[in-house]
Amino acid sequence: MVLSKEIKGIAASDGIGIAKAYLLVDPDLSFEKHTISDTDAEIKRIHDSFDASIDELKQIQANAKATLGDDEAAVFDAHIAMLSDPDMIKQIEDEIKNDKVNAEQALVDVTTNFAETLAAMTDNKYMQERAADVKDVAKRALSHLLGKQLPSLASINSPVIIVAHEITPSDTSQMNKKYIKGMITDMGGRTSHSAIMSRTLEIPAVVGSEKATTEIANGDQLILDGLNGVAIVDPDQAEVRDYQQKATQFAAEQAEWAKLVDEPSVSKDGKQFEIAANIGTPADMDDVLKAGAEAVGLFRTEFLYMDSDALPTEDQQFSAYKKVVETMAGKPVVIRTMDIGGDKPLPYLPLPEEMNPFLGYRAIRISLDRQNIFRTQLRALIRASQFGQLRIMFPMIATLDEFREAKKVFMEEKQNLQKETPGIGDDIKLGIMIEIPAAAIFADQFAKEVDFFSIGTNDLIQYSFAADRGNDAVSYLYQPLNPALLRLIKHVIDSAHAEGKIAAMCGEMAGDQRALPLLLGMGLDEYSMSASSILRSRSQMRSLTTTECAAIVDEVLAKCQTASEVEKLVNERLAK
Amino acid sequence: MVLSKEIKGIAASDGIGIAKAYLLVDPDLSFEKHTISDTDAEIKRIHDSFDASIDELKQIQANAKATLGDDEAAVFDAHIAMLSDPDMIKQIEDEIKNDKVNAEQALVDVTTNFAETLAAMTDNKYMQERAADVKDVAKRALSHLLGKQLPSLASINSPVIIVAHEITPSDTSQMNKKYIKGMITDMGGRTSHSAIMSRTLEIPAVVGSEKATTEIANGDQLILDGLNGVAIVDPDQAEVRDYQQKATQFAAEQAEWAKLVDEPSVSKDGKQFEIAANIGTPADMDDVLKAGAEAVGLFRTEFLYMDSDALPTEDQQFSAYKKVVETMAGKPVVIRTMDIGGDKPLPYLPLPEEMNPFLGYRAIRISLDRQNIFRTQLRALIRASQFGQLRIMFPMIATLDEFREAKKVFMEEKQNLQKETPGIGDDIKLGIMIEIPAAAIFADQFAKEVDFFSIGTNDLIQYSFAADRGNDAVSYLYQPLNPALLRLIKHVIDSAHAEGKIAAMCGEMAGDQRALPLLLGMGLDEYSMSASSILRSRSQMRSLTTTECAAIVDEVLAKCQTASEVEKLVNERLAK
Repeated sequence: MVLSKEIKGIAASDGIGIAKAYLLVDPDLSFEKHTISDTDAEIKRIHDSFDASIDELKQIQANAKATLGDDEAAVFDAHIAMLSDPDMIKQIEDEIKNDKVNAEQALVDVTTNFAETLAAMTDNKYMQERAADVKDVAKRALSHLLGKQLPSLASINSPVIIVAHEITPSDTSQMNKKYIKGMITDMGGRTSHSAIMSRTLEIPAVVGSEKATTEIANGDQLILDGLNGVAIVDPDQAEVRDYQQKATQFAAEQAEWAKLVDEPSVSKDGKQFEIAANIGTPADMDDVLKAGAEAVGLFRTEFLYMDSDALPTEDQQFSAYKKVVETMAGKPVVIRTMDIGGDKPLPYLPLPEEMNPFLGYRAIRISLDRQNIFRTQLRALIRASQFGQLRIMFPMIATLDEFREAKKVFMEEKQNLQKETPGIGDDIKLGIMIEIPAAAIFADQFAKEVDFFSIGTNDLIQYSFAADRGNDAVSYLYQPLNPALLRLIKHVIDSAHAEGKIAAMCGEMAGDQRALPLLLGMGLDEYSMSASSILRSRSQMRSLTTTECAAIVDEVLAKCQTASEVEKLVNERLAK
Repeated sequence: MVLSKEIKGIAASDGIGIAKAYLLVDPDLSFEKHTISDTDAEIKRIHDSFDASIDELKQIQANAKATLGDDEAAVFDAHIAMLSDPDMIKQIEDEIKNDKVNAEQALVDVTTNFAETLAAMTDNKYMQERAADVKDVAKRALSHLLGKQLPSLASINSPVIIVAHEITPSDTSQMNKKYIKGMITDMGGRTSHSAIMSRTLEIPAVVGSEKATTEIANGDQLILDGLNGVAIVDPDQAEVRDYQQKATQFAAEQAEWAKLVDEPSVSKDGKQFEIAANIGTPADMDDVLKAGAEAVGLFRTEFLYMDSDALPTEDQQFSAYKKVVETMAGKPVVIRTMDIGGDKPLPYLPLPEEMNPFLGYRAIRISLDRQNIFRTQLRALIRASQFGQLRIMFPMIATLDEFREAKKVFMEEKQNLQKETPGIGDDIKLGIMIEIPAAAIFADQFAKEVDFFSIGTNDLIQYSFAADRGNDAVSYLYQPLNPALLRLIKHVIDSAHAEGKIAAMCGEMAGDQRALPLLLGMGLDEYSMSASSILRSRSQMRSLTTTECAAIVDEVLAKCQTASEVEKLVNERLAK
């Protein structure tokens, strides 16, 4: 009897999937260089591999068009065009003729040279991206020369569980949620791109398994348990039955949660809170409404700057803000001013290359320095505030000087607009992200001057522990339950309340089931999270009593010295 | 009458210099591409420019050998060899012949191509460095083609004040302290390389002036006031007299400070403290003894790993540690375990390339992960502890788990060594750097388990304000006097004292005259700084009363909300 194999990782997105494994790993494309005599035959092999690549790309493109839409399908046009580039083909033919090398070698030599030339154009981002295209195209042609098959997300048209080293944003754009029943990756933690994306798409996911791609073969039958962070390879019938039952149970739970869509977010002892949604574009509002969010707690405005060839105009911004504010029909919408930095290059806004962009020139630091950009955004926000309850939040505030300066600029723009529209913008509340340790430590002083805080835990943890949240080598330091961090968060919440201000949270921690009892115990007012986590959190909140949770917080802060001690103690107290 | 011009910047290194300006700025080397007919004449121009470059480099090298030593002079060998590379010369000649372009264009085309090819070898650091050499050499040849003169630090042989955009480590290696009477840079803050280096070399310096290189011309007469952060261009006679007097006065002060070399570091009201030195190699010990340091508060061990082709052996490390410990003759020596990371590439220890190396895999994170490296260092330290008072300090500790793990490894190595040498290492005190906000916040719990703290303010400020200390665009956030930071530092000191432990500081702030009254008021026990700052700090300490300083700290923490408010209040109280 063959025992089924269990692979453990980090539970990243709830749910259970059962399907065949789809290995998103490149096959071995190594080859030997050798001398050939029949150059014509070798040149024909090149042409055949290019033709086959074009056919394959067209098929992937057609599939992508049908399942993902025109935009996602368009990226393949550049690849197809490149395979017809006469200059590149001529150079490969020349090398075969002159050097008498095999097609594989000539292909790799010429395309590597092309890619390096493009990549060396360091002040031309467009050309640098084309270098990546050349490499992609060369890989595909090489796979045909070697008779190997490249994996392709866009070509998936039956249910699978993705098994990958990690999932990149460009992978995501090629995924059809309908067929992806789960994902498991070798790399990543709870705040990696793979993890956040899987929660947004509501695909069960396990990350950081370290060995999924080496232990699982393409086509293996898989159970993926995103609730407990486990995958089972080649399960037996009893296991499949067991998990089908768990999946049914989870579906039933989800159905229960769905009933809470119009219910308030209250604790078991009747205290009222607010569960809000984080959004990235106005297109996310469908999910927000479906989840019954009581507010938009974080509207990121970067999309306006990223998906564009120029700075967004005041009117472009105004209409995006207006749309979200109107959709929320009087419920609060917290809009964060732009949080761009050196890690997100914009063709029209050249920023210096930095050794540590997360510690660099970004967000409010740019806004205060290049005020024309900031003022345009503030005017659009003030105008949109007429259509609902709009709040403005400044990111990356480290010192009171910065907040005062930002507020001064806001007041100036408001006064200018009030010349035409008396009273416009007077209702706008001004708040700050608490994501930099110095601001958290000084929250008691900030609370005297701001209208609200929103604790950005992803960055606050990153800076408090000096650990890049995108870096696997230090992911063990992403510790939302570390008692030093909890102490800091409690100080922020207490400081807000001492001045009668709102304390919100909009980092991943706000939707973390392990953290909710502690945050509730500290009296956090607003919990802003992915729309997909809202109903589950509301359900959990309705099972918790604030007085009990407050007692747990006191005990945790008095007794625990490490994150694992906190987790253990919370579990023990809640199990009582 | 022409008025003398004043340029303001940040005072980075004490002292006054009066000399001619030496502009360390490349001349305009732009040129037009054009078609030539006499190819032989153009090829001769190339050969002449290469010959002139070789002559010039040999002269610079001879001067460097005489004033700086053989090591610094050796770097020019590679440049001279490159100018004789027949392959490169042939390619330039071919381009002139085939394309009929001027020598300048052919030189730039061919050398750019060479440099790009070398730079593209991304997994070969040696070749990448050669790319920089090619560019240097091409620039020199081009300057001769265009009849311009390149600046050269190594050729300086009379007194000057350096005027530069910024000073790089490679510039530093070419400087002869004897002739450099001062420096002024456009870029940089108090913790930039230029600033730290100028203090170590005891050269008066002003940094961050923004416009020194545009406002000062080569050969201008200059007064550089590193005490007040000002440079005066073309001073009149009265100004020169005035500053000569100030320089005399400063020299007199320095002479007064020098008398304190064997005196204790005590406050005016007789409280005893310790002023210690930060060192980078055992060679720094001469300066430490001259300055009368009461301890070595930070012995950085990176030099062992950096200046080497392989990991340092246990014996190599042992002899370096032993030398320093013996030199201090029983006074404490705090040795920090290795603080290497992705920003300091080592050929024999490949580390992953990271997007944010300051938030990455480094220091104790590597030591705990690759324990063979750590254990070797610990054994060398334990063995060296027999020769004096050696303390071990772990860098980048964020959580108690990390300290406990590091201590466990230390205990294991100690027990192993005690099998041969009973009792060895039993006197060693174990401490941690407090440089990560989470550790500072949790200092009260750490204090129960460690023997001492040393506050690393450079990093603590960097992480607390999320601002890379090497990045000019965010240097305004380097705020040692920010009240949020002062609150955090006081918490660390109070936490140490509550458990009867030592609180030290080894960042730039420990030697900062504006900060000393506050640190003294908080009761900081040990102040570790550049040897060049020790006597001045001891003198300042002897003028301050701890009770008065403590009252100022209380007032600052109660009243001030910004760094500038703190500075103002401290100045007012001390002026009384």
